[in-house]
Amino acid sequence: MAHKFINEIEPGELIDDVYMITEPILRSTTRGDLYMAMFLSDKTGRLDGRMWQATETVYKSLPKPGFVHIEGRSELYQNKLQIVVNNISVIDASKVAIEDFLARTDRDVGQMFDEVKRIVGRVKNPQLKALVGEFLADDELMGKFRDCPGAMKIHHDYLGGLLEHTHDMLQVAVAILPLYEQVQADLVLAGIFLHDIGKTEELSYDMAFSYTDSGQLLGHITQSLLMLNRKADALAAKGTKIDQTVLDALGHIILSHHGEYEFGSPKLPATPEAFMVYYIDDLDAKINQVIAAIDSEQSDSNWTGWKNALQTKLYRKRIE
Amino acid sequence: MAHKFINEIEPGELIDDVYMITEPILRSTTRGDLYMAMFLSDKTGRLDGRMWQATETVYKSLPKPGFVHIEGRSELYQNKLQIVVNNISVIDASKVAIEDFLARTDRDVGQMFDEVKRIVGRVKNPQLKALVGEFLADDELMGKFRDCPGAMKIHHDYLGGLLEHTHDMLQVAVAILPLYEQVQADLVLAGIFLHDIGKTEELSYDMAFSYTDSGQLLGHITQSLLMLNRKADALAAKGTKIDQTVLDALGHIILSHHGEYEFGSPKLPATPEAFMVYYIDDLDAKINQVIAAIDSEQSDSNWTGWKNALQTKLYRKRIE
Amino acid sequence: MAHKFINEIEPGELIDDVYMITEPILRSTTRGDLYMAMFLSDKTGRLDGRMWQATETVYKSLPKPGFVHIEGRSELYQNKLQIVVNNISVIDASKVAIEDFLARTDRDVGQMFDEVKRIVGRVKNPQLKALVGEFLADDELMGKFRDCPGAMKIHHDYLGGLLEHTHDMLQVAVAILPLYEQVQADLVLAGIFLHDIGKTEELSYDMAFSYTDSGQLLGHITQSLLMLNRKADALAAKGTKIDQTVLDALGHIILSHHGEYEFGSPKLPATPEAFMVYYIDDLDAKINQVIAAIDSEQSDSNWTGWKNALQTKLYRKRIE
Amino acid sequence: MAHKFINEIEPGELIDDVYMITEPILRSTTRGDLYMAMFLSDKTGRLDGRMWQATETVYKSLPKPGFVHIEGRSELYQNKLQIVVNNISVIDASKVAIEDFLARTDRDVGQMFDEVKRIVGRVKNPQLKALVGEFLADDELMGKFRDCPGAMKIHHDYLGGLLEHTHDMLQVAVAILPLYEQVQADLVLAGIFLHDIGKTEELSYDMAFSYTDSGQLLGHITQSLLMLNRKADALAAKGTKIDQTVLDALGHIILSHHGEYEFGSPKLPATPEAFMVYYIDDLDAKINQVIAAIDSEQSDSNWTGWKNALQTKLYRKRIE
Amino acid sequence: MAHKFINEIEPGELIDDVYMITEPILRSTTRGDLYMAMFLSDKTGRLDGRMWQATETVYKSLPKPGFVHIEGRSELYQNKLQIVVNNISVIDASKVAIEDFLARTDRDVGQMFDEVKRIVGRVKNPQLKALVGEFLADDELMGKFRDCPGAMKIHHDYLGGLLEHTHDMLQVAVAILPLYEQVQADLVLAGIFLHDIGKTEELSYDMAFSYTDSGQLLGHITQSLLMLNRKADALAAKGTKIDQTVLDALGHIILSHHGEYEFGSPKLPATPEAFMVYYIDDLDAKINQVIAAIDSEQSDSNWTGWKNALQTKLYRKRIE
Amino acid sequence: MAHKFINEIEPGELIDDVYMITEPILRSTTRGDLYMAMFLSDKTGRLDGRMWQATETVYKSLPKPGFVHIEGRSELYQNKLQIVVNNISVIDASKVAIEDFLARTDRDVGQMFDEVKRIVGRVKNPQLKALVGEFLADDELMGKFRDCPGAMKIHHDYLGGLLEHTHDMLQVAVAILPLYEQVQADLVLAGIFLHDIGKTEELSYDMAFSYTDSGQLLGHITQSLLMLNRKADALAAKGTKIDQTVLDALGHIILSHHGEYEFGSPKLPATPEAFMVYYIDDLDAKINQVIAAIDSEQSDSNWTGWKNALQTKLYRKRIE
Repeated sequence: MAHKFINEIEPGELIDDVYMITEPILRSTTRGDLYMAMFLSDKTGRLDGRMWQATETVYKSLPKPGFVHIEGRSELYQNKLQIVVNNISVIDASKVAIEDFLARTDRDVGQMFDEVKRIVGRVKNPQLKALVGEFLADDELMGKFRDCPGAMKIHHDYLGGLLEHTHDMLQVAVAILPLYEQVQADLVLAGIFLHDIGKTEELSYDMAFSYTDSGQLLGHITQSLLMLNRKADALAAKGTKIDQTVLDALGHIILSHHGEYEFGSPKLPATPEAFMVYYIDDLDAKINQVIAAIDSEQSDSNWTGWKNALQTKLYRKRIE
Repeated sequence: MAHKFINEIEPGELIDDVYMITEPILRSTTRGDLYMAMFLSDKTGRLDGRMWQATETVYKSLPKPGFVHIEGRSELYQNKLQIVVNNISVIDASKVAIEDFLARTDRDVGQMFDEVKRIVGRVKNPQLKALVGEFLADDELMGKFRDCPGAMKIHHDYLGGLLEHTHDMLQVAVAILPLYEQVQADLVLAGIFLHDIGKTEELSYDMAFSYTDSGQLLGHITQSLLMLNRKADALAAKGTKIDQTVLDALGHIILSHHGEYEFGSPKLPATPEAFMVYYIDDLDAKINQVIAAIDSEQSDSNWTGWKNALQTKLYRKRIE
Repeated sequence: MAHKFINEIEPGELIDDVYMITEPILRSTTRGDLYMAMFLSDKTGRLDGRMWQATETVYKSLPKPGFVHIEGRSELYQNKLQIVVNNISVIDASKVAIEDFLARTDRDVGQMFDEVKRIVGRVKNPQLKALVGEFLADDELMGKFRDCPGAMKIHHDYLGGLLEHTHDMLQVAVAILPLYEQVQADLVLAGIFLHDIGKTEELSYDMAFSYTDSGQLLGHITQSLLMLNRKADALAAKGTKIDQTVLDALGHIILSHHGEYEFGSPKLPATPEAFMVYYIDDLDAKINQVIAAIDSEQSDSNWTGWKNALQTKLYRKRIE
Repeated sequence: MAHKFINEIEPGELIDDVYMITEPILRSTTRGDLYMAMFLSDKTGRLDGRMWQATETVYKSLPKPGFVHIEGRSELYQNKLQIVVNNISVIDASKVAIEDFLARTDRDVGQMFDEVKRIVGRVKNPQLKALVGEFLADDELMGKFRDCPGAMKIHHDYLGGLLEHTHDMLQVAVAILPLYEQVQADLVLAGIFLHDIGKTEELSYDMAFSYTDSGQLLGHITQSLLMLNRKADALAAKGTKIDQTVLDALGHIILSHHGEYEFGSPKLPATPEAFMVYYIDDLDAKINQVIAAIDSEQSDSNWTGWKNALQTKLYRKRIE
Repeated sequence: MAHKFINEIEPGELIDDVYMITEPILRSTTRGDLYMAMFLSDKTGRLDGRMWQATETVYKSLPKPGFVHIEGRSELYQNKLQIVVNNISVIDASKVAIEDFLARTDRDVGQMFDEVKRIVGRVKNPQLKALVGEFLADDELMGKFRDCPGAMKIHHDYLGGLLEHTHDMLQVAVAILPLYEQVQADLVLAGIFLHDIGKTEELSYDMAFSYTDSGQLLGHITQSLLMLNRKADALAAKGTKIDQTVLDALGHIILSHHGEYEFGSPKLPATPEAFMVYYIDDLDAKINQVIAAIDSEQSDSNWTGWKNALQTKLYRKRIE
Repeated sequence: MAHKFINEIEPGELIDDVYMITEPILRSTTRGDLYMAMFLSDKTGRLDGRMWQATETVYKSLPKPGFVHIEGRSELYQNKLQIVVNNISVIDASKVAIEDFLARTDRDVGQMFDEVKRIVGRVKNPQLKALVGEFLADDELMGKFRDCPGAMKIHHDYLGGLLEHTHDMLQVAVAILPLYEQVQADLVLAGIFLHDIGKTEELSYDMAFSYTDSGQLLGHITQSLLMLNRKADALAAKGTKIDQTVLDALGHIILSHHGEYEFGSPKLPATPEAFMVYYIDDLDAKINQVIAAIDSEQSDSNWTGWKNALQTKLYRKRIE
């Protein structure tokens, strides 16, 4: 049975479905009865839930947060939709269609990953080729690379977003590298492939998008660099020594790709390749962000609401 | 006879050639004799010039600045090369090979201009097509467009630089527009073609690169917008009315293409097309600037000198 | 019958008056009945409105936003005043006393406009005189100039605010110009008259204050400059050529009058006249803003609330 | 005998006049002879001086810096004018026409001071009147107030500059206060009179303009406030108690009159009077600075050189 | 009887205790009856209060704000706790245990003050010793010094916080001064003792923490400096002249101890002693702020919520 | 024979000593003879050198830069001291007393290193103890740690500066940690020990202070983190697994110790320990920098010259 999405629920419907529960609280009414308040959500939105005649046993059994099966009814209360819960039971995360709860790219992940492999397969420099190959051969990591969101919010903030962003940046690079002959193509392609690879360690995205402790304390830029050096150490152990010069040039692209200190880059771009990766990253992220904001605007206005990260509203009217 | 370039002159050579003269000054020696100090330059550098036994008549005849034919001799004075002038005569600018004095793109101007026309010829929107056509039909303006430098300094700072920069941006746009389907291609192409067109009025580049008074007071962003509106008025007078919606969308690209207030844009990008033009402009300018700095570095160091505009040195060593 | 202002309505009153309606929504209650929620407002404030037993026909007939005649009753609901609507009917904007809905200067518009004409009538430079005259002769534009607010918010944010601000700046200029002899008075007077003229195109103020699409995309600084150039073109067509030097000096005042890049000026002041207009503009706007904040403070405190644009609270106590 | 100004000396003149000497150094030539290098200056400029056959006795007798009588000759050395000194003798500062060494306002100090007294004489609030009177009655301080420069550099950087700047600000205030009725005129006038009074303690201007130790460590804003409180204490000792409310309002004007933290104001303007003093101060200082830069430009160009404090060149061409 | 703290009240309790009342408002219900809304608070939090059947006489008798004795009952209304008031009577502030309403340091004030006296007793320089002694001898001021909070919020925001912060800074100074021999210890100790002494005049903390008018207009940095100069004047009147050099060095520490213009210091640190006081102040304030934020976090998360003043969340997990 | 320091050379001395040569250039005179210009330096300064009758053979034999034995004579040329070189011969770096060329701490390196070991020996947490031990056991690295300068310039810019700075920070930490009980002492001590350890890879200091390529591209913050992870990997290989929690907490201190993004920290401090290391680092660096500037001031003034990094002059007068 298809999941009933939160943003499809009308007042007065019977509810019999799985939702994510967050911040459940047990309270007593003026008369001394216990009741429970909670949020119920999926990837399309969130509603208040109320369970009258709750018990402490039920309350203690609930995950905070986690998945629950809900039986109940939707109703309007003070002009706001809420769900009155009659029965609640815990559901193991493994039994849940996670796509109902976390947004996911609507593009073909397999196809995008094949294209990424095809493009980085063009790298000719033997050491860069070995490094790229070492990452591609790490099945567990590549699994995360295909799943990971591109960011917590702002742009590519959905499962598969990291792959989609990396894929699109590689396509841009392939298109424009012939126009800039002096820029070392191998470095740009390897740099794009690895520039955000640390996001697989920075972000947690099993039930909701959040930062890992390591991610919050170190950040994906540093984590990407550590992963690069671990792969180089692994290659060295297998007899393929990567020159420090190569690690410096590639590491510098990773460190400087945010382009400014205030965005968390500890070094500013200092090579043509670092500049190119920085601009392609920013271009692809901003166009994704702008198009998404325009597409998701609910009103009929020619303008979206104010976008703080861009310090402007966005204009939606087309001349075509 | 080929011009003897300033940076090719060795001590002790006979000089018989045309140079640009700037800041000539008439002075008297301790003994009361008159002599003249001046700078002599071409596009490769500048030397001190000294003319002993100068007269007020000669001094008054000289352009300040302008071109002069010099007969004399190079010599070392306090370890610095200078030119001792025996004869000096004024040369009309029309007789001068201006390429010896102003750097010029080494790429084929005709070919680049044809390619620009070919690419903007792909614009299908009838009003944008009419606007682009009105600019292309203005032979005097197109002549300036082919000659004008891309900037006073920093990037594309040579004759033909504006055309080269516009050409390269158009090629980048053609390469990546298919990857971003929702971005309106016609607006991006017309926007790139016109984004810096006001530089033809902002800059003066007959003998040396400088700002015109209008350019310094208004700036090329505003001048580009004025030119756009004049062409639209001209079209309207001929019966082709350009909708305000089109002028707004195209004008906004021009106004916002520096991307930040502090770089002189009175508006921040608020459309996908404005973001794309801004990033392509910045990418092409920075890659040009970085490659030029790396190529022109005199030392053998792995690093260029400090580049203030980029807040870093640049790394010159290649891994290939 | 005098309009009953929103901020004068007490609980339990009968309502029979015209209000602006915004964001009407049709909803169904728990029992399945349709009802309608809406905002009802005039220039003094905004209340929630509820119409029980609404129909889709009525809902579809309503402007969004627009003016409506309301019959109903005010009541407290959860300690908040709302209007229960019994009858609602659409009113054409032409039948409405717009002063009830948009704040307007309480000063005499005719008198202020006469004073503006009198002061700019002192301009002696023939070309500036012709330019100023061309604007004054444009009745439609001068009508807008008398009506237009000075800004969306912050200062002079009421109908007639642009005129009031321009008028007061001109009076300041007349008072201090004799103290600064080297400042060219004609340029200052013409510059003040035209510095914000583009606001007549940037702002929309028929039912509520908002930006036009052109205003949001181009901004009043650029729009003022375009208007200046169109008037100069019109004069040229009539045989009165305005020198580029005059257009540059006047245009520069317009472009630079915000004084800093981050406030949307694409050029920084570079003439004594541009500095003077910038300071007079800032002085008059800030004093208006500060006095208005002090006058409108509701509490008895010596201090207003925090004013974010000024990064301080304001002190209201007088020593007199 | 009139002083021979530094900027009037031609090569080959006999020199017999008083100059300021700074940084004298005793050196030995290749042959072992002693000679002395020094700078010789007055308010119009500075030249290198050389005294061959110097002795340690002479060197030790010289002030560093101070005034000396020079006998010698001007000559060109490597195209640079220098003074060859034959005799040098120390001159007491009291014997020197200090106007030859420190620039001084060319306006009438007595007239300006009378006008200042006349304007602040209009203050009616009894406590402000008492405070202003206490300052005016301090003859020693008023003597310094008439002499003190307005700043070390940038604007009003000459003897009498503080008076001139205060005088002009008061005139502006008198001209515009009638236009802003709600602004308390007495506070503005007293605030202007005292806003920079601490400069008399911050600056040293006997031989050259410099900061005192107190001035560098505390600054004129804080010093002005201390002086205000000392005068209030003195009045209190004489039985005229100044309310804290008055001292707060007046002190706040002094503290906030630089308008921004980064310019050394520890508080931002929070009263209409503080805003008005801030804007009048900035207006008068900037117009003075801009006019001075335009007037002192040596070249024939339409533009001055780059003015770092204003982040622009200044345009000198007039339309009149 | 112990005070019943706001954060300990459960639904359905009888209330018979003293609370602070703020913002009482008299309103009429739909039926025309009068009722009163108010906030009731102590140092642990704030609840809504409602008194049905209120009268204008009662309303007018209430302090706004002030202390009241409340008889009534707690209840849940729309899932939010509120207090229904049956009786309300005004309580004089002198009868109130102020500790129930304003947070206070939990450390021993007497002990800390003794330690402060002991440490500043080590000052040997006779003039600094006299100045410090003059402050210590001012019993009224020292009483305020022991009571005053360290700041309105952010750090040491509780009664006794100024003493605690000063005490801890002095201990840090005593610990590290031996490691930096060239730093003048007497100046550092006296500077720390007095750096924030003006907070006793800047802050009001009788019922709630707020700024005094003088504090908001002048600020504690300037107020500290004024107090320093008044004590020096008092000493001078008693025959102990303090050199300007000493007042400059000590005053400079006070003025510059915020370290940056944007934090309200009108001077940047320019002596080793000023740098040391600035760093010790910032270190102690930040560690206090960070530890307090970690300790007061309610959730079980490894992280606190976002701290805007620090631009980060704080990590709470310990490795020990 | 003691080295003759550059700043001790008087005009007319015979020179027979070793100096560093940089930027030698071969040139021809007006007469066509070859001569050589060069810089000759040691740690006390730099002079121009001239060798007349140079040959291309000699020129080609010279290191650029490197050490040379010079025979010649000092003389004044245009009032500037230079060295006329008669004989020049290359000296191997191993034969040179490097202390003559690179400034070195004047404190006892062995004693400081012992003290560092003693203090970090107090670390009790087994994993931090293991990590610290792994670094201490790396003799080659510890050798560099003892030699490395603390920075290229600004503070601790001499051999042994890194050790001195680390040593002094550890002493400050030991002194103040008892005052802040909730701060985890082990993390602070280990964090200080390792916070700048990457400078041993970032800086090159064999003949002159410069950045390595890796240092310029990656930076010591990132390099320190890589070294930490390599040591952890090495420990893991030996069976001592370091928890990610420990690596995160320690790594975070390293990454955030510059305290602000603009100083190259990719993360802002988010733990009490990170704040403490940041403040101790900044305090020790600034006090070192300020004392050094005061001590090295050449003039008799109460003030040093302007210090751009501190945005102030420094006051040198003591009150003691």
